[in-house]
Amino acid sequence: MNGGERDVAEVVAQVYPAWIRAQKPYGLSDQEGQVKLNQNESPFDLPLELKREILERVLAEPWNRYPALRDAELHAEVAAYFGVRTEQLLIGPGSNSLLGALAQSVAQPGAVVVAARPSFGLYASAARASGNRLVEVGLGPDLRLDIAGMIAAAREHRAALVFAANPNNPTGTAVPTEALLELVAEVSGLVLVDEAYLEFSGLSSVLRALDRHPNLIVLRTFSKAFGLAGVRCGCFLGHPEVLAPIDRLRAPFALGPFVRHCIRAILRQPELLRRTVEQIIQERERVLARMSTIPGVVPRPSMSNFVLFEVLEHEKVYRRLHRLGITVRDVSGYDELKSSLRVTIGTPEENEAFLNALAEAVK
Amino acid sequence: MNGGERDVAEVVAQVYPAWIRAQKPYGLSDQEGQVKLNQNESPFDLPLELKREILERVLAEPWNRYPALRDAELHAEVAAYFGVRTEQLLIGPGSNSLLGALAQSVAQPGAVVVAARPSFGLYASAARASGNRLVEVGLGPDLRLDIAGMIAAAREHRAALVFAANPNNPTGTAVPTEALLELVAEVSGLVLVDEAYLEFSGLSSVLRALDRHPNLIVLRTFSKAFGLAGVRCGCFLGHPEVLAPIDRLRAPFALGPFVRHCIRAILRQPELLRRTVEQIIQERERVLARMSTIPGVVPRPSMSNFVLFEVLEHEKVYRRLHRLGITVRDVSGYDELKSSLRVTIGTPEENEAFLNALAEAVK
Repeated sequence: MNGGERDVAEVVAQVYPAWIRAQKPYGLSDQEGQVKLNQNESPFDLPLELKREILERVLAEPWNRYPALRDAELHAEVAAYFGVRTEQLLIGPGSNSLLGALAQSVAQPGAVVVAARPSFGLYASAARASGNRLVEVGLGPDLRLDIAGMIAAAREHRAALVFAANPNNPTGTAVPTEALLELVAEVSGLVLVDEAYLEFSGLSSVLRALDRHPNLIVLRTFSKAFGLAGVRCGCFLGHPEVLAPIDRLRAPFALGPFVRHCIRAILRQPELLRRTVEQIIQERERVLARMSTIPGVVPRPSMSNFVLFEVLEHEKVYRRLHRLGITVRDVSGYDELKSSLRVTIGTPEENEAFLNALAEAVK
Repeated sequence: MNGGERDVAEVVAQVYPAWIRAQKPYGLSDQEGQVKLNQNESPFDLPLELKREILERVLAEPWNRYPALRDAELHAEVAAYFGVRTEQLLIGPGSNSLLGALAQSVAQPGAVVVAARPSFGLYASAARASGNRLVEVGLGPDLRLDIAGMIAAAREHRAALVFAANPNNPTGTAVPTEALLELVAEVSGLVLVDEAYLEFSGLSSVLRALDRHPNLIVLRTFSKAFGLAGVRCGCFLGHPEVLAPIDRLRAPFALGPFVRHCIRAILRQPELLRRTVEQIIQERERVLARMSTIPGVVPRPSMSNFVLFEVLEHEKVYRRLHRLGITVRDVSGYDELKSSLRVTIGTPEENEAFLNALAEAVK
């Protein structure tokens, strides 16, 4: 019946649901310049000596063997670092992969997922990709999470899942830890508190409340403060029985020897993490102060490793920065952030280059 | 309302659909012995010198940066190896992760996925995890894929997706390439042809038919013949417009510098692959011949890097092998394979240890 040439459009229309066909790919439109300040990465690679040590351990592992379904040492050390029991921990190849499994795990007819807007874009796409209905709640004054609004939305729709990033991305704003715990206490569904940028905020983690709130899941990552975005490792911390269904939806054998030894090594270097975070916070405050002195630039105070700022003609400024070798993130796609850009805090030299280019670009 | 202690069972019952709560985790019950012949891995690690070379390249990469959304060099080299255009290629951190995205991409009310039984267990679990209805088609005589039966089932249910492993796992059987192409031509939905074990079969790939069949997706992996199960890399090859929706459901930034340089290096060592495959095929035939001489053991001819065999009391034999330090896979959970075990072809020394232990165990 179908022998010979078939039309690909026919196949696509038959097998894929309309909403997936209509979906836009996750993309980075940024054309990269020499100074890369668009992905909220740490500007500091690990010291070469530490990289060598890690690779010596990777060398000694058999690469032809599947990783363990659950790497006991890795789980024990990561759990100890976060002060939880190993059963309260799910480690994935990047927290992105865990977010996808989480959204999929709650999917059923009528399931609603609540997220703030603007916030990390993957919440919305993961929620939609799993067929959940997404309800977005605008940010409050000062672009902080509107906790009362999120509670109201979650209750009204009896949400299965609420996404709450603290600090929030791309705004850099944060709410007090207590406000998040109120959210967790007041809604009956799961609350994913994304603490990807927590280290830069000075806030205490909601982790200490884990035992009291079985509906709380905390996301932590090694891609930001730990400086290991290329290593692909993030984790969920929560009640073992709540994590179990998410675990079942993940691809097995995901963590190889490279991830294993990078993470174990970095956890033994608390001083390195402390220094990195301190330096980035210092630079953030210096960059913010300098940005405030540039006419036509309105930066927003940040609890994170990036700064959101308004300019008059954001497209022109973005293009000019690019021409001057600086890549920032254009976040003006959100109505709420119409003329805004986001810049990651880099090394002192990178920040200096950015500040000089910005002063030039807004002229 | 929910302040204080809440019952975790209540949370789980509220947020997760019943079928996810009922699902069993992907597990390996195998208790590992010294000789590990249960996961169809290559017994050969890369030569130490090659591992060192790869790690020198990994060392030179920045680990603090996110991987590219699409690694141009890696895609170009993998596409060239398989003889396809780069747009026809999707590379993932293990083919398992791609199988999950594929099953999710076709999910919609009433969607049916067809798979053979017994076959690779992840087809069924990925299909179910995405909420698709799974229709299983028993194997034909000689435990080979029942192509006519699969065509009939796919047509009857207007299946969105058919999984077809060739060679099939855990049986080691294969059908001619032409039979698969008939399946692809005769059904209107997608057909995922899993060629994870193709290198051991001597069969030609269905890849050469890719341009004629937009509903064909081919799975290839670096975990078996290439000996890189610990590196986590597999790929889908197909029509760009058919791959696009699957791509959109994957977690972005999945391939770090370790994967990148392992795969690029291995593709430059065709001689290494050829020797590995040749040695495993030779050993497979030797092991098969020897097994046939052991009273009470009925091995099945294999086109793969493992051998399925029947014994009288498989539980006793499994336990005895374990006590003798040999780990095989108990596949007797399938009704069709009631008293069967599966053994991976290892190094000559490992195979010798297995053969001696088996002769002992069936006594």
